[in-house]
Amino acid sequence: MIGLGLIGGSLLRAASAGGRTTWGATESAVDAETAVADGYEVGTDVAGALRKAAERDAIVVLAVPLTGLDEVLRLVAEQAPSCLLTDVTSVKAPVLASVRRLAPGARFVGGHPMAGGTSSGWAAGNPALFTGAAWVACVEPDTDLAAWAEVSTLAIELGAHVVPVAAAVHDEAVARISHLPHLLAAVLAATGAYGGPLAASLAAGSFTDGTRVAGSRPELVRAMTEGNREALLPVLDEALGRLGAARGSLASTGGLAATLNAGHEGARRIADLRGAARAAVQVSLAAPDARDGLCALGERGGRIVGIDGSTALGEVA
Amino acid sequence: MIGLGLIGGSLLRAASAGGRTTWGATESAVDAETAVADGYEVGTDVAGALRKAAERDAIVVLAVPLTGLDEVLRLVAEQAPSCLLTDVTSVKAPVLASVRRLAPGARFVGGHPMAGGTSSGWAAGNPALFTGAAWVACVEPDTDLAAWAEVSTLAIELGAHVVPVAAAVHDEAVARISHLPHLLAAVLAATGAYGGPLAASLAAGSFTDGTRVAGSRPELVRAMTEGNREALLPVLDEALGRLGAARGSLASTGGLAATLNAGHEGARRIADLRGAARAAVQVSLAAPDARDGLCALGERGGRIVGIDGSTALGEVA
Repeated sequence: MIGLGLIGGSLLRAASAGGRTTWGATESAVDAETAVADGYEVGTDVAGALRKAAERDAIVVLAVPLTGLDEVLRLVAEQAPSCLLTDVTSVKAPVLASVRRLAPGARFVGGHPMAGGTSSGWAAGNPALFTGAAWVACVEPDTDLAAWAEVSTLAIELGAHVVPVAAAVHDEAVARISHLPHLLAAVLAATGAYGGPLAASLAAGSFTDGTRVAGSRPELVRAMTEGNREALLPVLDEALGRLGAARGSLASTGGLAATLNAGHEGARRIADLRGAARAAVQVSLAAPDARDGLCALGERGGRIVGIDGSTALGEVA
Repeated sequence: MIGLGLIGGSLLRAASAGGRTTWGATESAVDAETAVADGYEVGTDVAGALRKAAERDAIVVLAVPLTGLDEVLRLVAEQAPSCLLTDVTSVKAPVLASVRRLAPGARFVGGHPMAGGTSSGWAAGNPALFTGAAWVACVEPDTDLAAWAEVSTLAIELGAHVVPVAAAVHDEAVARISHLPHLLAAVLAATGAYGGPLAASLAAGSFTDGTRVAGSRPELVRAMTEGNREALLPVLDEALGRLGAARGSLASTGGLAATLNAGHEGARRIADLRGAARAAVQVSLAAPDARDGLCALGERGGRIVGIDGSTALGEVA
C-alpha cells in the first residue's frame, strides 16, 4: 500500500483484518508513526516497500493523490516493473495514460472505490469504509483478466461490489454524479454566504443538504475535478444549459415546470434503478469476448459480487 | 386555520396541543374527514370558519398554496374583513401585495415557518414540526405591532423562534437558501439521470445529498419558486455567473481553486454564523423606532424568543 490517507489507511486496515499480509509506505512521517503504533508494518521508504512487493509478487495499491502519482509510478518502474498494480484514484483515464507512459510493464487494473468522507489522513481510516460500496475495476481492451480478477477479489473481500467499465466511461459517469455535485455545492455555499447573517439564520434542510460536500478539503476536491477536466467540461456545459434554460423560462414565461419536472423525474428514475430487483448472471473470464461482456454489464448498472476461478459472478437489473 | 396540508395540519395540531381553541377548514374533503376522525373541529366551509373567526376575534392563519390565496383573501374580505390575519406561504412580498389589494382592512402579519418535508397533506402533519425552526414574522413600516406580537407569541408557543424582517428582505434570503437549492437539485438530478444506469449505480453521498429535495412534489416547488420570481432571478444569475466562471476557468487554465475555495469559505462562514454565541437583547414594541429595531435584529441574524407585554425578548450574535 503506497499512501495511507483515508482510503489507503482504510484499505490497509481492512485487508489486514481479512487475513492478508500487508505493508505500506507513506511520505507522511506522522501517519507512518501512528500506523506503526497501531500495529501495522508501515514506513516512509516507498522504494523499499515496492521492492518488497516485487520480491513477494504482491498486489501494489497506489493510494496517493493524482498530483503525486507520476512520481510514484517512476519508482514502480524502477523497483517493481512487472508487478500487479492498481490504484484508488477518483479519475481513471489520466491514470491509465500515466501508467502506460511511466510503468508500461506493470499488469495494471485501474480502481476506484466509491467511498470517502470529509475527513482525511491515517487517523480518519476505517476498515468498514468499503462495506456496501461500489468499487470500479477498469476493463480496457488489453486488460489482463487474471490481474482484474485478483483486484476484484480484493475489493469483494473488503465488502464492496465491483463495477467493471472502461476508464473513459467511468470518468464520464463520475463527472455527473460526483464532480458536478461538488461544483454545485460550492456555488450554492458561496451564493448562500453572500446573503449574510439573515440567509444563515434562515437556512434549512435544502441548503444544508445541498452544501454538505462544500465542507470537504478544497485541495482534494480540486485534485479530482481538475484531474477529470476532459470528462467534466461537457457535463458542466450540460448543467449550465439546464440552469440557463430555467433562468430563461423564469424570466420570460415565469414557469419552471420543465426544470422541476425533469429533476423530479430524474430523481425518481435513479431511485428506481438503484432499487431494481437484480438477477444473477455469470461472465466467463476465459471467453474471447469476456472484456466486452464485463463492460456491458457495468454500463447496464450491473455489478460483480464474486470471483469463482475463471468465472465472474454478477448481478444485473 | 384555512388549509390543512403539512404546515396547516401541523399548526392546528400543535396549537390545539398547546391549549388554544382551534377550528379549521379545507377544500379537501378527505383531509377534513381524517382531521375530524382525529378529533379536530374541521370542515370544508371556508366562509363559515372565517365568519366564526370574526365573531370570536380569532387569529386567522392562511395555510393554502400561493396559487389559491387570492380566492381565500376575497372570502376574508367578505367574512372577517378586520381580522388578525397571518399566513405560512414561502414568499412574502407577493402575499403582502395580494392582502393590500383584496383584504386591506385585515390586520395582516406575513409569516413563514422554515419547516417542511417531502411529504404533504393532513396525514403528514406533525405537531413537533416547528420545534427549533425559524419562523419569519414580517415587519413593514405600517405593521400593527400588537398584531405582530400576537402572531409571534403563537410561533414561539409552537417551539419556533421568530425572525422579524420586511417581506422583500425575506424573499431575497429564501431565494438564496431555499429556492436556489431546489433548482440546483433539479438540475443535478436531471444531469445525473442522463448518465443512465451506470451513473445510478455509482452515485454516492455527494449526489444523494445534492438531489434529496428533487424528490419534493414539483407543483409545491413550482409554487414557491415561480411565486418568488422577482427575487429569484438575480440570485439565479449570480449562481449562473459563478458556475460559468468555473467552466471558463476549467476550460482555460484547468483550475477550479477560486470556485472551490469560495464554496468552502462560504460553508465555513455560514456554519460559524449559525454556531455563534448569542447575547440577549430587548426591543420595546412601544418605542417609535420599534419596527426598524426589529428588522435590524432580523437582518443581523438575530431572533425573537419571547414576548413579554410590550417587550420582545431577542438574541443576537
